[in-house]
Amino acid sequence: MSRKPSKDAPKLPGTPYGGHVRARLWITGDQGGYLGVGKVQLLEAIAEKGSISQAAKAIGMSYKRAWQLVEELNGLGDSPMVVTETGGAHGGGTRLTPRGEHAIKLYREFEAEFAAFVRKFPHPMDL
Amino acid sequence: MSRKPSKDAPKLPGTPYGGHVRARLWITGDQGGYLGVGKVQLLEAIAEKGSISQAAKAIGMSYKRAWQLVEELNGLGDSPMVVTETGGAHGGGTRLTPRGEHAIKLYREFEAEFAAFVRKFPHPMDL
Repeated sequence: MSRKPSKDAPKLPGTPYGGHVRARLWITGDQGGYLGVGKVQLLEAIAEKGSISQAAKAIGMSYKRAWQLVEELNGLGDSPMVVTETGGAHGGGTRLTPRGEHAIKLYREFEAEFAAFVRKFPHPMDL
Repeated sequence: MSRKPSKDAPKLPGTPYGGHVRARLWITGDQGGYLGVGKVQLLEAIAEKGSISQAAKAIGMSYKRAWQLVEELNGLGDSPMVVTETGGAHGGGTRLTPRGEHAIKLYREFEAEFAAFVRKFPHPMDL
């Protein structure tokens, strides 16, 4: 990839949700902790790859960081979002629980509703 | 202030906008750059104090950082948001232009509409 200079690419924070709006969104747990886009992307990658190490690699995250986030995710409630089964015919694997699937769905729905809210915002966004 | 341990206070990101939602919101300029809560708080403090150094002090920001943000704010469009007048009967002073006032209003309105959107979100936010 070329590293062509751009006057805004290096520094804009968050994720774009409309022509003039960027944001970071977090859903907090009842017992502390939070779910943000990084954890959601990790959950999505684990669901696809069936492995924390392969998931981390797929999204360009360090293995250590991925494990740390999985621990945080599993501490968000009374039961885990990510479980690893050892042994078995295929040497085990990592998968999401229904709570993990629900967390992805809730975050992505919230994000989609937010994008719709931004599109419908009634005032011009000219600074 | 006491530093009583709390299970979530040290690490939660962003600003709370509802029981289970935290966020950071940014409005981007047509020519690059962005307006976020830090710059808005600085603009509000400058409007109140009439001085960049006193504004920085009031919001616990370094003077250097405040000047940097004022420069960024003044680069968001074709005309400045913050102007400093030197001399005169009262030794000059710093004030917002109508563009600076408009930026505060736009951000705070957007934030209030976002809080209303969060309150009306139709799904339970239980992770």
